[in-house]
Amino acid sequence: MSSTTPSVRPSGRAPSDLRAVSLEAGVSRYAEGSCLARFGNTHVLVTASLETDLPRWLKGQKRGWVTAEYGMLPRATHTRGRREAAAGKQSGRTQEIQRLIGRGLRAVVNLEALGERQITIDCDVIQADGGTRTAALTGAWVALAQAVRYLGEEGLVADPAAVIRAPVAAISCGIYQNVPVLDLDYEEDSRAEADANFVIAGGADGTAGLVEVQATGEQRPFSEAELQALLDLAKLGCGHLFDLQQAALAAAAR
Amino acid sequence: MSSTTPSVRPSGRAPSDLRAVSLEAGVSRYAEGSCLARFGNTHVLVTASLETDLPRWLKGQKRGWVTAEYGMLPRATHTRGRREAAAGKQSGRTQEIQRLIGRGLRAVVNLEALGERQITIDCDVIQADGGTRTAALTGAWVALAQAVRYLGEEGLVADPAAVIRAPVAAISCGIYQNVPVLDLDYEEDSRAEADANFVIAGGADGTAGLVEVQATGEQRPFSEAELQALLDLAKLGCGHLFDLQQAALAAAAR
Amino acid sequence: MSSTTPSVRPSGRAPSDLRAVSLEAGVSRYAEGSCLARFGNTHVLVTASLETDLPRWLKGQKRGWVTAEYGMLPRATHTRGRREAAAGKQSGRTQEIQRLIGRGLRAVVNLEALGERQITIDCDVIQADGGTRTAALTGAWVALAQAVRYLGEEGLVADPAAVIRAPVAAISCGIYQNVPVLDLDYEEDSRAEADANFVIAGGADGTAGLVEVQATGEQRPFSEAELQALLDLAKLGCGHLFDLQQAALAAAAR
Amino acid sequence: MSSTTPSVRPSGRAPSDLRAVSLEAGVSRYAEGSCLARFGNTHVLVTASLETDLPRWLKGQKRGWVTAEYGMLPRATHTRGRREAAAGKQSGRTQEIQRLIGRGLRAVVNLEALGERQITIDCDVIQADGGTRTAALTGAWVALAQAVRYLGEEGLVADPAAVIRAPVAAISCGIYQNVPVLDLDYEEDSRAEADANFVIAGGADGTAGLVEVQATGEQRPFSEAELQALLDLAKLGCGHLFDLQQAALAAAAR
Amino acid sequence: MSSTTPSVRPSGRAPSDLRAVSLEAGVSRYAEGSCLARFGNTHVLVTASLETDLPRWLKGQKRGWVTAEYGMLPRATHTRGRREAAAGKQSGRTQEIQRLIGRGLRAVVNLEALGERQITIDCDVIQADGGTRTAALTGAWVALAQAVRYLGEEGLVADPAAVIRAPVAAISCGIYQNVPVLDLDYEEDSRAEADANFVIAGGADGTAGLVEVQATGEQRPFSEAELQALLDLAKLGCGHLFDLQQAALAAAAR
Amino acid sequence: MSSTTPSVRPSGRAPSDLRAVSLEAGVSRYAEGSCLARFGNTHVLVTASLETDLPRWLKGQKRGWVTAEYGMLPRATHTRGRREAAAGKQSGRTQEIQRLIGRGLRAVVNLEALGERQITIDCDVIQADGGTRTAALTGAWVALAQAVRYLGEEGLVADPAAVIRAPVAAISCGIYQNVPVLDLDYEEDSRAEADANFVIAGGADGTAGLVEVQATGEQRPFSEAELQALLDLAKLGCGHLFDLQQAALAAAAR
Repeated sequence: MSSTTPSVRPSGRAPSDLRAVSLEAGVSRYAEGSCLARFGNTHVLVTASLETDLPRWLKGQKRGWVTAEYGMLPRATHTRGRREAAAGKQSGRTQEIQRLIGRGLRAVVNLEALGERQITIDCDVIQADGGTRTAALTGAWVALAQAVRYLGEEGLVADPAAVIRAPVAAISCGIYQNVPVLDLDYEEDSRAEADANFVIAGGADGTAGLVEVQATGEQRPFSEAELQALLDLAKLGCGHLFDLQQAALAAAAR
Repeated sequence: MSSTTPSVRPSGRAPSDLRAVSLEAGVSRYAEGSCLARFGNTHVLVTASLETDLPRWLKGQKRGWVTAEYGMLPRATHTRGRREAAAGKQSGRTQEIQRLIGRGLRAVVNLEALGERQITIDCDVIQADGGTRTAALTGAWVALAQAVRYLGEEGLVADPAAVIRAPVAAISCGIYQNVPVLDLDYEEDSRAEADANFVIAGGADGTAGLVEVQATGEQRPFSEAELQALLDLAKLGCGHLFDLQQAALAAAAR
Repeated sequence: MSSTTPSVRPSGRAPSDLRAVSLEAGVSRYAEGSCLARFGNTHVLVTASLETDLPRWLKGQKRGWVTAEYGMLPRATHTRGRREAAAGKQSGRTQEIQRLIGRGLRAVVNLEALGERQITIDCDVIQADGGTRTAALTGAWVALAQAVRYLGEEGLVADPAAVIRAPVAAISCGIYQNVPVLDLDYEEDSRAEADANFVIAGGADGTAGLVEVQATGEQRPFSEAELQALLDLAKLGCGHLFDLQQAALAAAAR
Repeated sequence: MSSTTPSVRPSGRAPSDLRAVSLEAGVSRYAEGSCLARFGNTHVLVTASLETDLPRWLKGQKRGWVTAEYGMLPRATHTRGRREAAAGKQSGRTQEIQRLIGRGLRAVVNLEALGERQITIDCDVIQADGGTRTAALTGAWVALAQAVRYLGEEGLVADPAAVIRAPVAAISCGIYQNVPVLDLDYEEDSRAEADANFVIAGGADGTAGLVEVQATGEQRPFSEAELQALLDLAKLGCGHLFDLQQAALAAAAR
Repeated sequence: MSSTTPSVRPSGRAPSDLRAVSLEAGVSRYAEGSCLARFGNTHVLVTASLETDLPRWLKGQKRGWVTAEYGMLPRATHTRGRREAAAGKQSGRTQEIQRLIGRGLRAVVNLEALGERQITIDCDVIQADGGTRTAALTGAWVALAQAVRYLGEEGLVADPAAVIRAPVAAISCGIYQNVPVLDLDYEEDSRAEADANFVIAGGADGTAGLVEVQATGEQRPFSEAELQALLDLAKLGCGHLFDLQQAALAAAAR
Repeated sequence: MSSTTPSVRPSGRAPSDLRAVSLEAGVSRYAEGSCLARFGNTHVLVTASLETDLPRWLKGQKRGWVTAEYGMLPRATHTRGRREAAAGKQSGRTQEIQRLIGRGLRAVVNLEALGERQITIDCDVIQADGGTRTAALTGAWVALAQAVRYLGEEGLVADPAAVIRAPVAAISCGIYQNVPVLDLDYEEDSRAEADANFVIAGGADGTAGLVEVQATGEQRPFSEAELQALLDLAKLGCGHLFDLQQAALAAAAR
């Protein structure tokens, strides 16, 4: 799966190398949970907001909800994009991403244990260099976990440990110059033959479960063997991310 | 992958059974290509429209474009949904689906060979019983192929065979009561532990390539073995669909 | 009113000829009432949906409501039109038509006898060759009547016969090459000197009442005598349509 | 058609009486044509604006266009209505009315003689007491005629008399307490059994042609005899309105 | 502050001259309060509507609310502007103005004394020649005062005098050809070096308080001395406007 | 103007104290100019983007344009606000602020010297504790200056020093517990009797000119003396800000 020959990657990384990743929890003065997730030059600010006013369809159901919104600052990218608030609507891409993040988080949350409250995750991309959705989801779990810890500390939830069943992280992979590589940056992403996003839940015993697999042949169809290679890289990457998530939460608790 | 015990499926189908599928090409009086795709009680009407007025970003690039739109009649489903035109916007789900369809078709189209023209695929769900996006994409390829044949007959494209490199079809699969099953209907889809959509391109020699894999753990994470089982079912199903696509095109040519 | 000389009509029809009309009730698997109305190449799919959630302005008034929505598939016509859901709003034409249909149906409905419930009529044009609004309204009455019959069968309404006071049908007429003609197709409609839509309610004794008259001079003003000729044609046409409506309902009841 | 018994009308008017009508041309300081139309307590301010920038679909066609927009001040009525600009869209009613006005005016305009320019008619209801659309159209013709006169005076149109082929006016009628009456006010309009709007073009020799007939049974269907009675009233009323239009234009020319 | 040399102003006015101002209260047949405010060729129709249905955020707070909306007829100006209802949104300028008017009125209203009701002020510019926002606000106070008087007469408010603590008026000033001048018309406004809008509350003893100061350097920054000169002009102008407001209210009471 | 008695301010600051202010230029990897402006807990990220595609109304005019957009992350504040992109429109407050910023910057820019190009300033509030619009404008000038320096370095502008005529900065002031104070934080702002925003241009010789004055009586009208006191504070504050702007630019140039 990985190559010992000189790297094909523009960054010189080995195929199975993540970029420099940092997750910093507690960066927002006001939000109940927050995380600044940096994957190389991709920087995403995530906040988790406890909302007291439940959406109507959720009232009286004895369970809560976790939802996500995603946005990108207009000049997060090489060329300025149109501000979605000025355009008057969110793009299909934005909606696809925020649906993915919300779904991925809910996969590990016990909504009954959360109680009749909503946690809204805001993921705002400050700077983008590929992999914003996976960085967002990885940081979102940290912000969510911090918010749930706050619920426990405030006595609003009896057993915070029951609310989040497992960690969840996400990473992109792709076939670049016919080599499966981990954690694409923008230069790779824009020229990859295929790319994929994986959302993976961590198990108590180090095992992992697949929460979401999205793989797309951009330049050509891909084979089952290639899909397997990408999946193997993703498991490797998410293993590292689970450790960084725990470290970020621990640092913020001090 | 399949089970010899009594079927767990509400319909009584075996795990690897498709529903009754019919693809009928040429159903529209006006469109250059069209197909009524029926997967059991899921009925999708697809048209392929040749558009002479290229979007601005495409002009002068010596290549064409294929794009898709998706809609659902308000009472296609058990309970009436709000008409998107009245709501004033397309839902995130709608946008996600039409992006998937367009991407899946373009994966097998040679846009340079198509020339400076756009083909717009409209997929309108007349009746929905699960699997609308995969039925739409499978029918969309038929409508597109008919429209490209029209381009050849009219002398607008020199070599229509060069425009579409391969057939492409799509099918859903899922884990239902812990059994991997093919082609979910609504009752299965709404209660599946995991579901997946596969877009697969047919090869000249019977081989196939993966164009898109989207798998989601709805009730729980899923394992690699389960992903493999779903993929095996999808390949089986798409093999049947490729045959039905060719038959529909042949029938419409008579 | 009719002419014995060679027909001026592109279709060769006599001035007082309807196109081949078929009304098929019960075509939707889910809707409480439905009808596929075909007037020649104009095909409209109508569903009647029983809605349990009344609009706020109607609550507590001891009466119900009947409303209609109208849409056209983008490639129902010779050239593709923009999808209204993508455009983000319904055109003035669409709104005008759906207001006409709702008004025409309510003219024969006893809203108190319907009780505190709403029936929403969706009219979706699958294929258009002129006269879509009148075909839609004619089919809408069938779908509505089927839904009211369902209300009776379910014991939700004590006396379904009291809910719908009379049949209602609609037909277009026009002055084409200075001859008043019935049931314009698109080729006639686009070149007519004047056109008109009539909504007519059937009487128990074969008499009829006017529900709506909309006549427009497209190329020139028209005379009172011409208006009278169009009205006479419309009465003739609606007489036939009343018979077809009853037959469709009877066939669906078997 | 009219009654010699005590009037059924709340205002005490005879069935064939118009309200006090005044048409004042040239009320706007800036517009090329304008008219304040007052039908009793219904007051509509109309401007005709010469637009140098043609809509794209009209360019290079050697003809012009006349279009209309309609609006109502939020407190023109007994209770405040929502401002359409704040609501973010025009209602179906608004669009229906502005389409009617544009169509009615174009019926008497020679668009080739107008040349490659657009005249936009704005009809804004300052105060509403029924019949706003017919008052608007009647005043709109005056504003349009003044604007065309301006085109002649400025030498922009060679033969202004050729541009407008005939006067056009509009009036509402209705069946109120089973009596056909002319020019409904709001109190009548809200309780009429049927109402109708007629747009009528004046002939050079005093004859008139029908441009638009819109009649609706609000409380019950109406008969052919009733339609005829309403039409007779409308012709009478429009005869008066043609005189007032000419007088308004003459007064503004001084 | 004023100049004895020949006027620099296009209108020939002295620097401290208002245009001919008239305020006419009670011009609307339906509104609880109304005022037609004319500042030269700037004409604004203002209505004050008593709304029984409070916005949700205000319910149960034992106080009321005063809010304002602003609009301009499309041809109020030299060239036609796009109708905001057709454009589907209110411009930033419109929102800025209506926020200013609402804020200025609320500065002198005792919302607790008003009770749990909302008064909505609609300011519609019939004709514009500069200074529409200040004319609107000056007329809005008259309409508001008339509506509050109505509340007292109807016994809905115990002490109407307690509801409005002071009169409030507004006027524009500017630096035109380096001379501070009062009440800019459009020609001055479009070429002024700086312009300013002042909202001033009248005191019981003839003193005045500043409610809002908005001054902008359009062609160049301005000095403190210039700001002072503009403020002195505004106080002078508002003194006249307070008198006209009282006279308008008195005339409407007769 | 300032007080020697114990501070009334929640923060303990003296009335004429700014918060801790830092301006950091060059924080964005991609933008031609950028600045992170921090005024205490108010943090605004500003980018300046060089846009090659001019708005249509500006083409061929031999001058450029500077415009600004403003946004706030949903959880920048104590409670989460609705995301404007999801709401589908920018609030009146947002539009008012972005208009202020654009106007303030253009007051010191020579648009002819800038040439036919647009610079778009994006101001995104990461965290808000009062004074976001003035922090944004102060940082925006730094980002703009950096972008203009880039234009010079790239040889796109012959004389970058001619493009920006002067520095411009902004600061808020207010009357808090009857004391005029500088640079309100949120706690002061929400309870101030009056607040004001000043935009001030720096002179070559240390003199300053007023670009914009916006003062509002929130709890009561304010006096001329109070306005003067606020203005004096603002001049003091902007003097400091000019120094910080120059230092930020110098640091980024190294």
